[in-house]
Amino acid sequence: MTSSDPLVVFTPSGKRGHFPPGTPVLTAARQLGVDLESVCGGRGICSKCQITPGEGDFPKHGITVGAQALSPWNAVEERYAQKRGLKPGRRLGCQALIQGDLVIDVPAESQVHRQVVRKAASARAIQMDPATRLVAVHVPEPDMDEPSGDFERLEAALRAAGHLGDAPLGAELRVLQKLQPCLRKGGWEITLALYRPREDRPAQILDLWPGFYDGPLCGLAIDLGSTTIAAHLCDLRDGQVLASGGVMNPQIRFGEDLMSRVSYAMMNPGGDQEMCAAVRAALNDLAETVATEAGLSPDAIFEAVIVCNPVMHHLLLGIDPVELGQAPFALATSGALTLCARDLNLSALNPGAQAYLLPCIAGHVGADAAAVVLSEEPHKAETLTLVVDVGTNAEIVLGDQTQVLACSSPTGPAFEGAQISSGQRAAPGAIERIEIDPISKEPRFRVIGCDLWSDDPGFAAASAATGITGICGSGIIEAVAEMRLAGLLDPSGLIGSPAQTGSERMLQDGRTWSYLIYDGRAADGPLISVTQGDVRAIQLAKSALYAGARLLMDEIGTDRVDRVVLAGAFGAHISPKHAMILGMIPDCPLDHVISAGNAAGTGARIALCDRKARSEIETTVGNITKIETAVAPRFQEHFVNANALPHATDPFPELSKLVALPEVSFNTNSERPSRRRRRSN
Amino acid sequence: MTSSDPLVVFTPSGKRGHFPPGTPVLTAARQLGVDLESVCGGRGICSKCQITPGEGDFPKHGITVGAQALSPWNAVEERYAQKRGLKPGRRLGCQALIQGDLVIDVPAESQVHRQVVRKAASARAIQMDPATRLVAVHVPEPDMDEPSGDFERLEAALRAAGHLGDAPLGAELRVLQKLQPCLRKGGWEITLALYRPREDRPAQILDLWPGFYDGPLCGLAIDLGSTTIAAHLCDLRDGQVLASGGVMNPQIRFGEDLMSRVSYAMMNPGGDQEMCAAVRAALNDLAETVATEAGLSPDAIFEAVIVCNPVMHHLLLGIDPVELGQAPFALATSGALTLCARDLNLSALNPGAQAYLLPCIAGHVGADAAAVVLSEEPHKAETLTLVVDVGTNAEIVLGDQTQVLACSSPTGPAFEGAQISSGQRAAPGAIERIEIDPISKEPRFRVIGCDLWSDDPGFAAASAATGITGICGSGIIEAVAEMRLAGLLDPSGLIGSPAQTGSERMLQDGRTWSYLIYDGRAADGPLISVTQGDVRAIQLAKSALYAGARLLMDEIGTDRVDRVVLAGAFGAHISPKHAMILGMIPDCPLDHVISAGNAAGTGARIALCDRKARSEIETTVGNITKIETAVAPRFQEHFVNANALPHATDPFPELSKLVALPEVSFNTNSERPSRRRRRSN
Repeated sequence: MTSSDPLVVFTPSGKRGHFPPGTPVLTAARQLGVDLESVCGGRGICSKCQITPGEGDFPKHGITVGAQALSPWNAVEERYAQKRGLKPGRRLGCQALIQGDLVIDVPAESQVHRQVVRKAASARAIQMDPATRLVAVHVPEPDMDEPSGDFERLEAALRAAGHLGDAPLGAELRVLQKLQPCLRKGGWEITLALYRPREDRPAQILDLWPGFYDGPLCGLAIDLGSTTIAAHLCDLRDGQVLASGGVMNPQIRFGEDLMSRVSYAMMNPGGDQEMCAAVRAALNDLAETVATEAGLSPDAIFEAVIVCNPVMHHLLLGIDPVELGQAPFALATSGALTLCARDLNLSALNPGAQAYLLPCIAGHVGADAAAVVLSEEPHKAETLTLVVDVGTNAEIVLGDQTQVLACSSPTGPAFEGAQISSGQRAAPGAIERIEIDPISKEPRFRVIGCDLWSDDPGFAAASAATGITGICGSGIIEAVAEMRLAGLLDPSGLIGSPAQTGSERMLQDGRTWSYLIYDGRAADGPLISVTQGDVRAIQLAKSALYAGARLLMDEIGTDRVDRVVLAGAFGAHISPKHAMILGMIPDCPLDHVISAGNAAGTGARIALCDRKARSEIETTVGNITKIETAVAPRFQEHFVNANALPHATDPFPELSKLVALPEVSFNTNSERPSRRRRRSN
Repeated sequence: MTSSDPLVVFTPSGKRGHFPPGTPVLTAARQLGVDLESVCGGRGICSKCQITPGEGDFPKHGITVGAQALSPWNAVEERYAQKRGLKPGRRLGCQALIQGDLVIDVPAESQVHRQVVRKAASARAIQMDPATRLVAVHVPEPDMDEPSGDFERLEAALRAAGHLGDAPLGAELRVLQKLQPCLRKGGWEITLALYRPREDRPAQILDLWPGFYDGPLCGLAIDLGSTTIAAHLCDLRDGQVLASGGVMNPQIRFGEDLMSRVSYAMMNPGGDQEMCAAVRAALNDLAETVATEAGLSPDAIFEAVIVCNPVMHHLLLGIDPVELGQAPFALATSGALTLCARDLNLSALNPGAQAYLLPCIAGHVGADAAAVVLSEEPHKAETLTLVVDVGTNAEIVLGDQTQVLACSSPTGPAFEGAQISSGQRAAPGAIERIEIDPISKEPRFRVIGCDLWSDDPGFAAASAATGITGICGSGIIEAVAEMRLAGLLDPSGLIGSPAQTGSERMLQDGRTWSYLIYDGRAADGPLISVTQGDVRAIQLAKSALYAGARLLMDEIGTDRVDRVVLAGAFGAHISPKHAMILGMIPDCPLDHVISAGNAAGTGARIALCDRKARSEIETTVGNITKIETAVAPRFQEHFVNANALPHATDPFPELSKLVALPEVSFNTNSERPSRRRRRSN
């Protein structure tokens, strides 16, 4: 290209260059590195390379676009427009030839690296740069005088079209077996699902179709928790979530929490393999379920990205987790893993499907924590950010752009509504919000599946469909916090008697008291109350969480954080105010406490849609300082100290600004505090 | 290292350098790139790094070795010497520390790249540089403060010991699942079967053992022919052949020759998969057989190198060979292939075993021809060399260091004793050598399994064990050639009558004559004769072979070759003189016709033992000019012209010097030559 050739400017990138007349716009875009998509390699089939040529004067670029600056609308464009429609003013970049100076706009949907904005609160955009793409290519026919194999000619065609870089091309026997009939059926046109996890690593053909094929091409982002497994089916072409689903982790029958599962593996020869088979089967079923929901065959799933804690990680891989049950908590492997999905028995997926597991951070801090980091990016934060992902185990990350620390803390299942007298998982009928009137001590509540509060007119009718069945994780947090606010609970966690609280809702429960929220027994429904045992369970869970955060703060040498991100399915529903009243998280201005939704799941989606995010998180994880709570004496100390609920004299200045905590003490009453609890107050 | 440090010179390499006192000799050798083996990484376990320190003056090197130049004999060396013995004067390179100027000899058996000299005629040495090696390494124990995975610490240890270069390390789940118990059982010492096919590609752990493990570590070199499958079990540590074996290719029941098998696949849906399963099962059985013969489990086989023609290649891979049955004879893939052996269902081998298939040259010129090139190296020859590997199909390569051409020719199974009236494969009892007295026309012969000629005293007793059962490939060649020499056959291939030949051994056989070699009918044995049909079958086979060679000679523009290499199992047994009498090969001085034994099998062994040979043959094959005989009009012409046997007026000057060919013609007699044959003479 010389300066006497037409000048072409692409917007919005501003990239510009001179090109000889007759150059297709797509070719010019490629030479300039303009982000213009093309699947079919410029043969007017895929229509991905749509552009909008400008008209008239562009003083900013010093260009006046003439009437003949592009070649006329041609037959290929006409056929495409008639068949599928082209927006007014659009041309196909592979068909329109440069004839004069041009300003050409690349619409968002024609960009390879278009962004998908996440719906959740923190609007982290996902850059689309998937490892697996559809690539259509023309393969020269065989020639007896130059007898290369069909595969070698395909490789040469892909390389010439820039799809391989310098890296070799690989294919399984399964693919080689299909290649010859496929090429001949498609008249030497072929579309490949080409997997290229890194520019500098070999590419691999996962599947192939005769002629031009335009999908579906999906990936599955899986958040494999101890209790639940969630999956998002994403379109690998544009990042859209096509369907989401979740199932209970079937390993629950081998043990509710991680350590019981490790014990099961230790006590039962082959137990690890039983649990491995169970979770793999559940993943297969889940893949089928979400694919069906999206109206697709699971065969259209070419990648799975899996995030999970270390024990789930090892059990999924078929590695005995015994070493994770004892110091020094050695992982068999901590690095990111790329596997064939069928090595994980994910046979529902496409036979060529690949699985990627994010790296683990430490023996107790897993790939799920890495996914939270990828999603919430504490390592890029300018202010000190605490990220907690609360599940049966809490993953806790603290840091900013200068350093990042991570640990995990065994909160137990109380926050998920388990081990709570009226607890249940978050499902229709579960009480999820509670308010207690500080004067009357009467509660009002909302249940999942009904938009009305319990004292709204028409609530009885509106909630009839779901009933009122129990109390879920976020409900129990609010209930305990509201009880504290209403003076029904003292800072040590003791529930007061009717005499002490002045409320007839306090029910005798052995030697302790409980607080009645709802009595449905007249209509064969449950009696829902918060017992002293429930409060103790929440206290244990919240002190574990708080102690983990404090341990990281000690390491950094700070006693306050600037920002708190509550992540996880639970974090999405929790009320930050109530969490602060319970002392679950360090003191922080309320408007600096945000919910990030299922950050681990989002991290999985990011790694699924953006292959560069994979190397990014692999590098980032290597720079994280890992803190082992299980053997840190200070963790125990913080844990014991955090057992009490905050009270007015506690160092919670932000909380004090927010609410007035009643100064009550029920210590002399029905429940005799243990020596330990007394010391801890 | 500075020049004031002791100077160390290694012989025979001559590599030299200065090293600080206290440096182990092994460390110095590694830093200089001296070829000194070590499996255990310098811990005095493997004893591979034995060296012989010099004593006294070495004027050539400008060194006088003092008495204290090496550290004293230590306890590790003493223990090893007592347990397994050390030759006098030897030290362990990892134990002996440099204290002064030294001259150190590395004995041949301590070299990594020691050579194994092939037993066959052309003494091509195999350089030992196997892709799979045993590597013992110490892995640091896990540390809670630096919580990397066991695998990551193993990788770091391997990298520090120089076993990985810059490439990443891979391991299948199977290996990861075994890693933690293995490391703990071995007290953090571990031995790996490390597969590293190329320095610049990722390495892979194929298997692992706790502590220090010294084998067995084997590979299988497989020559997969249309009719027979041969395998050599090689020790990957020193290249020795531990056992060899062969079986018939079970695909024979689907078709004797390649094209019948292609037809079977075309006519029978799933027929390609039937043949695929049959040959894979046979390879598994063969692997078990040779391993058992060597007293090993087939689990000790970590690599298989397979050479075969294109149809066998595709059928083994499960690729429908239909395209190989019709022009343009397109291969699905022509490049070399590296696969997991279990992808070929070679389940008898170690679960981690890798399979390597040499590249195919063209649609009719396979990986077996590539192996012949690797073994016989025509591309390095200074004189024009013709290599023919004769089987059911003949692979023909012609060239020198300036250019190499290749083709294949469908000789059919006659040279293997098939489609011959008294034919049989080469087995005890088969006539393999024949002489016919030119005066008496009486034959004498030898059978496989008996060292005596049939007219030697005691032959009857000596051959009683095997009997006299038929005539094998090399026998039928000698028989027909001897008949020609004795004047029983004219140049057109006609057998004469008793009247024309003066021999009562000529038997009436319909309208033609046959020659009686042995009549065992009195003792319920066979009547073994050479019929007119046998002669015609040999004529067809030899003209196909000759025509292929001529076609390549035409391409180069020559009418003579300097050297002929007869390769293949058949080539090993054939008598060059008799081959020339039949006109199988172009005229050439007899002492320039050599037998290379099973060159394809040798090529497979070379690729098995020397990973660099793999990239070498991949490059070489890319530079070979491929000639397709099936569509070359000149091939048909040469084929027709070559039907006759050489006679005195033919342009076979070297043959004329060797033997006097009787001028006979039986044309007017019993058999009426066809028009075509008349034209061809």
